[in-house]
Amino acid sequence: MSSFKTIEWTDNKVVMIDQRKLPGVEIYNEYSTHKEVAEAIKSMVIRGAPAIGVAAAMGVAIGSLEYKGEDRQKMIDFLDKVCDTLAGTRPTAVNLFWAIDRMKRVIDANKDKNIEEIKNILVTEANLILREDIETCMEIGLQGSQLIIKDSSVLTHCNAGGLATGGYGTALGVIRSAIEKGKNITVISSETRPFLQGARLTAWELQKDDIPVTLVTDNMVGSLMGNGRIDSVVVGADRIAANGDVANKIGTYAVAVMAKHHNIPFYVAAPVSTIDFECSRGDRIPIEQRDISEVTHIGDTRIAADVDVINPAFDITPNGLVDAIITEKGVVKAPYNESIAKLR
Amino acid sequence: MSSFKTIEWTDNKVVMIDQRKLPGVEIYNEYSTHKEVAEAIKSMVIRGAPAIGVAAAMGVAIGSLEYKGEDRQKMIDFLDKVCDTLAGTRPTAVNLFWAIDRMKRVIDANKDKNIEEIKNILVTEANLILREDIETCMEIGLQGSQLIIKDSSVLTHCNAGGLATGGYGTALGVIRSAIEKGKNITVISSETRPFLQGARLTAWELQKDDIPVTLVTDNMVGSLMGNGRIDSVVVGADRIAANGDVANKIGTYAVAVMAKHHNIPFYVAAPVSTIDFECSRGDRIPIEQRDISEVTHIGDTRIAADVDVINPAFDITPNGLVDAIITEKGVVKAPYNESIAKLR
Repeated sequence: MSSFKTIEWTDNKVVMIDQRKLPGVEIYNEYSTHKEVAEAIKSMVIRGAPAIGVAAAMGVAIGSLEYKGEDRQKMIDFLDKVCDTLAGTRPTAVNLFWAIDRMKRVIDANKDKNIEEIKNILVTEANLILREDIETCMEIGLQGSQLIIKDSSVLTHCNAGGLATGGYGTALGVIRSAIEKGKNITVISSETRPFLQGARLTAWELQKDDIPVTLVTDNMVGSLMGNGRIDSVVVGADRIAANGDVANKIGTYAVAVMAKHHNIPFYVAAPVSTIDFECSRGDRIPIEQRDISEVTHIGDTRIAADVDVINPAFDITPNGLVDAIITEKGVVKAPYNESIAKLR
Repeated sequence: MSSFKTIEWTDNKVVMIDQRKLPGVEIYNEYSTHKEVAEAIKSMVIRGAPAIGVAAAMGVAIGSLEYKGEDRQKMIDFLDKVCDTLAGTRPTAVNLFWAIDRMKRVIDANKDKNIEEIKNILVTEANLILREDIETCMEIGLQGSQLIIKDSSVLTHCNAGGLATGGYGTALGVIRSAIEKGKNITVISSETRPFLQGARLTAWELQKDDIPVTLVTDNMVGSLMGNGRIDSVVVGADRIAANGDVANKIGTYAVAVMAKHHNIPFYVAAPVSTIDFECSRGDRIPIEQRDISEVTHIGDTRIAADVDVINPAFDITPNGLVDAIITEKGVVKAPYNESIAKLR
């Protein structure tokens, strides 16, 4: 397990480590309204597809506690709005919608119970989603660890670690599991501009757990591959289409193209909840465009000339560049339309 | 021409725009000793292969003025040390050594003249190198502009502009020339971590000269290529081996690999003085490793966890990924061993 808590339910509050402040300070924020939770997701206090799924579920649970009235239908109507608010935070990671839909189904299945019971059931369900997420990551790790060569150097991009999930991580779960099996793994972490998840989060989390890690800028990855310094690539995913196209942090596509050029295996590790079975292909996945200040500023310091900037948060890696998708239900390979359908 | 002066000789001082401070402030530093000039090269007040060639030549000229004695042989011995100091600043860009060698040859050819004459000749020669560099860039621009499609989007990495040369630029010279010929060019500038030459210098310089530019992080380039948003790539070079392998800013190799994958032409623009005819292939070019604080800090702000970091300043793009090398003596293509030999 990772040696920190990404998100927890404590005393009817949602507690999250503030990932915007890492690695400088390790601060845990407490939230007691669904709007605060929504804002935390939007502003990236918490990020990573599975983690924001857990956060959204806890946001729904907190929302139910916010309702102080005694009219069950009014509470259910209120929770509808809570779900809409949480769903409106970020568009790309499908786990967000998956978790909200799951909470909605629980509300629907229990809509005849009394108000206090419904609240308890929602809090229990949100905590179950967290627990399941951790177990899922450990199983992803186990499934994926077989793909990792005994003594090797693994590149990961962005953070698909304990910080991106309930704990343990998807891509980093694979690495953790390989190490637990006695494999001698060095991680190369690309810094992941503009939000620097690699430099700030992956590097911090691996160091905290005593896993050897070397940090590089994103543009060094090609050269390292050319020099034989990277044996495999494992990344997470924000949404996987039914055909195996993968939406993940901006830069993932470039890494996949370079891995193909150098004959380096490129693996995606994600829970089945990251697969959007209704989405036939990657170009139908909405790509979030974030504020350009993420590119032009570090904190309050301007680091760029004042010109046009684009800041897509994700890109799409076509299935042809993906050697395998590692899920808790097994490792799937091309043809993905078939292998992914079997995971449903 | 670019609308600013990268480096000038004024009142027996070397004046340089401080490129570490751009785009925040436009400050011009004055140097009156060769040690100051060497430090300016080392600390990247000035950077870019042709520009540091000019700076080194002016450093030798300033060195001659520093000698206040009347013993000609002592002055020549002193100038030998001056040349060594300047040659020890940065290892990769060959223009530095080319310019120092040229100044040494001038010293040697004039070693029988009197001290004041030698000083004048060296100052004149350094200024000639600057003037020639600008003319060379304009000719590179003219040669390269024919390769640029009429209405197109051109990616450049790092800064091979007026700031990297005496003025006008190599890669940006090609773009300037294409625009002067009425072509409708949009530039995509990759930010170029860690030193951010793309975000700070290329974006600043193009904006100053009213050339449309969009800034992206390095890891967005692949995705833009995949989406058909880049029609060609033009970069500069720090050293070109006799076989056409190109040493240039870290990240260039990755851009070249991605350009190949997407069938996008990849061009290198550089003066013949950037070609190291004695160097048979790219893997013999020394790659400068710079301080890791460039990666881990922005100014005084730490932006990364405290882990192992590598910071190679350059990488090698093999000749097979280079569609053409644009020089002032013409555009050369594969087989490079033959075409480059003809430029000698």
